[in-house]
Amino acid sequence: MMKPLPVSDRLVTVPASPIRKLVPFADAAKKEGVKVYHFNIGDPDIETPEVMMEAVRAWDRNPIGYANSHGEAPLLTALNSYYHGLGFSFLETRDIQVTMGGSEAISWALFATCDTADEVIVFEPFYSNYNSYAIVHGVKLVPVLTTADTGFHLPAEAEIEKMITRKTKAILICTPNNPTGTVYTKEEMEMLVRIVKKHELFLLSDEVYREYAYDGRKQTSLLSYMEEIPDQAIMLDSLSKRYSVCGLRIGALVSRNTEIMQGVLHIGQGRLSAGLIDQLVAAKLSEVPQPFLDAIHAEFEKRRDVLYEGLRAIPGVVIPKPEGAFYTIVGLPIDDAEHFCQWLLTDFRDNNETFMLAPAAGFYATPGKGKNEVRIAYVLNTVAITRCVELLKKALEIYPKKTA
Amino acid sequence: MMKPLPVSDRLVTVPASPIRKLVPFADAAKKEGVKVYHFNIGDPDIETPEVMMEAVRAWDRNPIGYANSHGEAPLLTALNSYYHGLGFSFLETRDIQVTMGGSEAISWALFATCDTADEVIVFEPFYSNYNSYAIVHGVKLVPVLTTADTGFHLPAEAEIEKMITRKTKAILICTPNNPTGTVYTKEEMEMLVRIVKKHELFLLSDEVYREYAYDGRKQTSLLSYMEEIPDQAIMLDSLSKRYSVCGLRIGALVSRNTEIMQGVLHIGQGRLSAGLIDQLVAAKLSEVPQPFLDAIHAEFEKRRDVLYEGLRAIPGVVIPKPEGAFYTIVGLPIDDAEHFCQWLLTDFRDNNETFMLAPAAGFYATPGKGKNEVRIAYVLNTVAITRCVELLKKALEIYPKKTA
Repeated sequence: MMKPLPVSDRLVTVPASPIRKLVPFADAAKKEGVKVYHFNIGDPDIETPEVMMEAVRAWDRNPIGYANSHGEAPLLTALNSYYHGLGFSFLETRDIQVTMGGSEAISWALFATCDTADEVIVFEPFYSNYNSYAIVHGVKLVPVLTTADTGFHLPAEAEIEKMITRKTKAILICTPNNPTGTVYTKEEMEMLVRIVKKHELFLLSDEVYREYAYDGRKQTSLLSYMEEIPDQAIMLDSLSKRYSVCGLRIGALVSRNTEIMQGVLHIGQGRLSAGLIDQLVAAKLSEVPQPFLDAIHAEFEKRRDVLYEGLRAIPGVVIPKPEGAFYTIVGLPIDDAEHFCQWLLTDFRDNNETFMLAPAAGFYATPGKGKNEVRIAYVLNTVAITRCVELLKKALEIYPKKTA
Repeated sequence: MMKPLPVSDRLVTVPASPIRKLVPFADAAKKEGVKVYHFNIGDPDIETPEVMMEAVRAWDRNPIGYANSHGEAPLLTALNSYYHGLGFSFLETRDIQVTMGGSEAISWALFATCDTADEVIVFEPFYSNYNSYAIVHGVKLVPVLTTADTGFHLPAEAEIEKMITRKTKAILICTPNNPTGTVYTKEEMEMLVRIVKKHELFLLSDEVYREYAYDGRKQTSLLSYMEEIPDQAIMLDSLSKRYSVCGLRIGALVSRNTEIMQGVLHIGQGRLSAGLIDQLVAAKLSEVPQPFLDAIHAEFEKRRDVLYEGLRAIPGVVIPKPEGAFYTIVGLPIDDAEHFCQWLLTDFRDNNETFMLAPAAGFYATPGKGKNEVRIAYVLNTVAITRCVELLKKALEIYPKKTA
């Protein structure tokens, strides 16, 4: 071959993850012996429940064969019981499709509701990987801006409705929100339900952080409206964050729309199954003691407090108080957060330590947005968070590209 | 809602797996207390290597966090060593992307090489799930027929070339072949390399059954040509069959095309990672003793012999001698194999036993092809295979729709 064979046009448009693309710089720093605090990725340091660890260690199924495409029965039963425990006792296991992480659930929901060039409304900043799934499926994400001054809550109904076109098929939300930490109110959820009813759209709700709402808040789940709009509601879930098992790759797509459920089962058959070990370990979710979950919740709320109080004291830093999840979008007094984040890894050292953040531009669809923002995942303990705040303060003081 | 909300046009075209769609009938039979022999799916009864089982039981990483998007280092190193051991010492870990089973590798290869409505040449019958991945990515599979009378070997070069259009981007093969058992010769592989060089196409080779070639045959891998056509060659692999770990969901996409490798890494980042446990257990592949692998090979060759000798003695059954893998496409003296396979599960009982096969039509892209054929996966021991042959003989004798 004289010239390289062209790959597909779409392949080259799949973006590098803003959460992971700076990893080589972090690895280089570590090779130099520098300690790197990871606030870039939602991979909590919380221990996996002992009952799940024990299930791994007690493994005796041999061979490790294919699992059921729909989901292993014990896991489907456990998930169903969990949703019943939340008050949604109308659900049945046939309404639940086990997926390989929340990722696969999101990906399938876009495929199931949209043909190529169809549109999905998202509220930016949004979880960056939505961009990847959208590109893989040829779906156009239509961003509606949310901003720090309203705590990243939803804009007025008319602002959302004016973005709806003939190509719009769905609205995709995440509550509690990654990357903003915002928990949509009951009123906001009702507004969304009203909009999708009026315009005949699907409502896709990523609820991976369901349990993480603070200051006495309670998440309003799309499941609350699933009997009202059974054809239109698709809830996307994951065990990763709730049970600190990001590496298990187990999630779920939940819907009462039988055509959707049959279609995703067929896609699921095409990829055979989610992992057998992961599914059967995840099935132990019903044996995880409530105090364990309560302790995680309390721990993240405490981390949120330490981070929020620390950051708001730094001049030029903009941070609304995060309401849930374990992320926050933080405005910094700099021009180019990507350069800043890279510089932290390549140049900034304090007592031979540095830290890693995710540049926020990758969480926006609108070019130019989020350039002076970062996403911080407060997934490390309060000692580390206190140190992170201190490091950020020092870094901003000496960062050469800092805006005056 | 008065009328149900329409799902995407593409969702409803994703086919049910011909391997799995009759599972509900099998489950119903089992509930009646009927023993069902599963010859429908390539889920071998061979035990997982002890070193992998031990790795599960010795699990001590806590929390079970995200793995590396590219692949965990020990697994990349083990895969690289394995390929070096096969004689392909030019490979480096950067040429290997860990995938969630061979499924994800095949899916990504289609996405990476084709835009919507582009064409990929496949030889039918072909692995049915290629249809699913093609539909998910809007790729058109263009079938070139292979038949039992030539042992499902490739047709003449000109027959293949005449199917190439301006939209053709790749040729996708599987060797040793699922579902036919055919092992392409060195000459056939060289012909394919010649064609892709002449027409500037990608060559995608699914080599999940690499080790399973019988009667002294040796598979000719696409890796043998990877230095000759580095931009064009993409090899798709899985650990599922080689180590009897179908439930681990670990595979690999291997290519020297740096643009492809960067693109698939970005897709990989979008889905975060393959399972952490699965990857680290799979990394033990380098410690699996060779006698274990030799014994599996010998066992499958013996099963092939028992099945082949048994089936060819049944009047009206057409079966070329399978050369590799653990599948065979079998012509039956019936009109509608799907009906027959369902009838086996719903009506046929012999000593309260029956068996499950995969109707072959789902392994063809051409409508009407394969209607009187089934795919048999000889994944059970020789006692079960002997019983399967006996049951098939009896079933054909009494099947009401049998053609005279």
